[in-house]
Amino acid sequence: MSGTNHRIDGKRLWDSLMAMAEIGATPKGGVKRLTLTEVDQRGRQRFAAWCEALGLTMRVDAIGNMFARREGRDPTRLPVLLGSHLDSQPSGGKFDGALGVIAGLEVMRSLNDLGITTEAPIELVNWTDEEGSRFGHSLMGSGAWAGIYPLDKVYGLRDVDGVTVEDALNAIGYKGEAPAAPFPADAYFELHIEQGPILEREARQIGIVTGAQAQVWYDAVVTGQDAHAGTTPPSARRDALVCAARIIDLVDRMMRARGEDGRGTVGQLHVLPNSRNVVPGEVRFSVEFRHPDTAEIDRLAAQFPREAGFIARDCGTPLQLTELFRLPAQPFDPGCVDLVRQAAARLGLPAREIVSGAGHDAVYVARSVPTAMIFTPCKDGLSHNEAESIEPGEAEAGCQVLFEAVLARANRAL
Amino acid sequence: MSGTNHRIDGKRLWDSLMAMAEIGATPKGGVKRLTLTEVDQRGRQRFAAWCEALGLTMRVDAIGNMFARREGRDPTRLPVLLGSHLDSQPSGGKFDGALGVIAGLEVMRSLNDLGITTEAPIELVNWTDEEGSRFGHSLMGSGAWAGIYPLDKVYGLRDVDGVTVEDALNAIGYKGEAPAAPFPADAYFELHIEQGPILEREARQIGIVTGAQAQVWYDAVVTGQDAHAGTTPPSARRDALVCAARIIDLVDRMMRARGEDGRGTVGQLHVLPNSRNVVPGEVRFSVEFRHPDTAEIDRLAAQFPREAGFIARDCGTPLQLTELFRLPAQPFDPGCVDLVRQAAARLGLPAREIVSGAGHDAVYVARSVPTAMIFTPCKDGLSHNEAESIEPGEAEAGCQVLFEAVLARANRAL
Repeated sequence: MSGTNHRIDGKRLWDSLMAMAEIGATPKGGVKRLTLTEVDQRGRQRFAAWCEALGLTMRVDAIGNMFARREGRDPTRLPVLLGSHLDSQPSGGKFDGALGVIAGLEVMRSLNDLGITTEAPIELVNWTDEEGSRFGHSLMGSGAWAGIYPLDKVYGLRDVDGVTVEDALNAIGYKGEAPAAPFPADAYFELHIEQGPILEREARQIGIVTGAQAQVWYDAVVTGQDAHAGTTPPSARRDALVCAARIIDLVDRMMRARGEDGRGTVGQLHVLPNSRNVVPGEVRFSVEFRHPDTAEIDRLAAQFPREAGFIARDCGTPLQLTELFRLPAQPFDPGCVDLVRQAAARLGLPAREIVSGAGHDAVYVARSVPTAMIFTPCKDGLSHNEAESIEPGEAEAGCQVLFEAVLARANRAL
Repeated sequence: MSGTNHRIDGKRLWDSLMAMAEIGATPKGGVKRLTLTEVDQRGRQRFAAWCEALGLTMRVDAIGNMFARREGRDPTRLPVLLGSHLDSQPSGGKFDGALGVIAGLEVMRSLNDLGITTEAPIELVNWTDEEGSRFGHSLMGSGAWAGIYPLDKVYGLRDVDGVTVEDALNAIGYKGEAPAAPFPADAYFELHIEQGPILEREARQIGIVTGAQAQVWYDAVVTGQDAHAGTTPPSARRDALVCAARIIDLVDRMMRARGEDGRGTVGQLHVLPNSRNVVPGEVRFSVEFRHPDTAEIDRLAAQFPREAGFIARDCGTPLQLTELFRLPAQPFDPGCVDLVRQAAARLGLPAREIVSGAGHDAVYVARSVPTAMIFTPCKDGLSHNEAESIEPGEAEAGCQVLFEAVLARANRAL
């Protein structure tokens, strides 16, 4: 089996991660590299320069996705893709996204150092705007590439200052020539931090990601009646916040009824008029459920609106519930997942199968390309946070698994 | 009994209410007359001009409270006070406060028209900054007058633009010569809209206010841990909003356990980071309880922190609960209350006893002066709202009761 005795360079990987983290560095040790800003441009340019130094050929598509190609021995083979994203949340960390791109770069560097020519070509990808923080649309680059989001609609999205995606692409010189459309590829591998606590808690170095959870998201509005808190007796109250509170409790109970695989969250909530001595007349909040099993999400999507409606009726405060979207579970490719499993086993790294709870570019890429992901632990499960932290040894282990999986795929017998 | 055949002029009262409502009128039919602004200055000037036209003597104290005096026959008698406030909430209505002041003006006008000389002098008061909307300190004028708030501390309070109370008083020319301190007075009567639904629901024209509720107010902070909503399993969650939701439900249940006299409200709540796909790491909210019985508030103040603490412990999310203040119930003067009761009975107006749930200047005045209040119904119990509404006949009935109670008190045998 190829790759077994080849090692990536953990120190070089870490140094490049830190060098990328300088671009948009925040005082609290995090990163603010919002998509398609001048800061993102500098990140892209540093990445491009690193790729060029390796002799890779850079191609940019119409939504700014960057593909750095290393040719293989067999010109008829489809490329093996690997990568992630370089944009960050407004108060993001050093590793969310950057790890997958910079580890991909380290894979390319190691292939060069080791003088390896793979059978298939390999392309390292930096997807545009995974985070969605600026234009309100996460997985934008991979979604446009996969044909899920029509390009002209994406071009017209605006940030808070009214700048469109198309203008922003042009402003930083990253509206490329290549079409933003799926091209035939043999596989896609993405290394990412878990953004959750499971691997750390179980002391596993590697998460073998078998797929992504099914999800259903809602917007909820409870309408009560503003009333004076001192003068309005219990029988006359229609308190929107009391109703919302009981629905929040319901979401938590419905999650826990599904055991450790359940996810149910009210993350955002606004109270109106939000004044100490006024019974709240309106509460707006988000609800989301996730589960590895699409059927379970379908059951939740049937039960939750009914149960929440009962609560609202009891409270005398009408509930308007809007289902924003429902995504089925996205299983990853068994063959690609198995390459990750084999690499971890061969390296003797403690590993476990895991289902991705977060959205990743890989979820959209998986619709047209055989895909797998590799997770590494992150400290306290923290992400989307300047305190996001991983150990150099964890980055190295994840990158080594990525290297071996990519190499095995690129050299596989057809 | 004096006054029985004397009638105030309901049309003149309503016209003056509408004339005052022109000052700071909002497009939605409400009033924005924030304390000590140029708009408030115009309201005060119109009021002063009306008083001067009646031959009343205006006195302004050091916190801007205005006292318009009508002399009585007996110079040794203490004055009977009546009034309320002319300032409003930012989105206030036409009647909250203004009714009591303009009805007091109508009492003075009717006394003049009817050629009545009372035994005791009568003073009509416009208290400064009842609402607290600008400087964050409600009942400011009556509180400073009553000696509850030290004047130099009140002078230093600032609005959002950094303007102090003292500067604002000087800017509109209402930092007066008279000391802001309680002077001996025989009684204080205040007519006010109920700001609640009870009178309307029971079709009563008059609320005989027997006192003000006891209150206890808290600030609550629940500390959890921000975590990714998709990746964090139930066992690893410390969701501050789920804990807050259960405490909100507790507040509602503790209120309802006390029947129609109970009040318990979470009116204000902020979620951090308040992002759809992040388990909330912190929730800050207000809690208040009110009850006519001080002992019941003391029991609530003992039980609630304990019960809320149990919930927080179960949720694994520490709760920090700060008691902001606890006010005992403020009973009004039985003799003054009885004058209100007698007037309503004599006029054949449907009336009921009621405890004030809202804060009023009368609550502070009552600490040194025998006090009573009269409530009139307001549409749907709405107040602190541009849609605040009362019927002209309701204003007239309330004013007539005020007239008779004041006249009876000012002419009482000593």
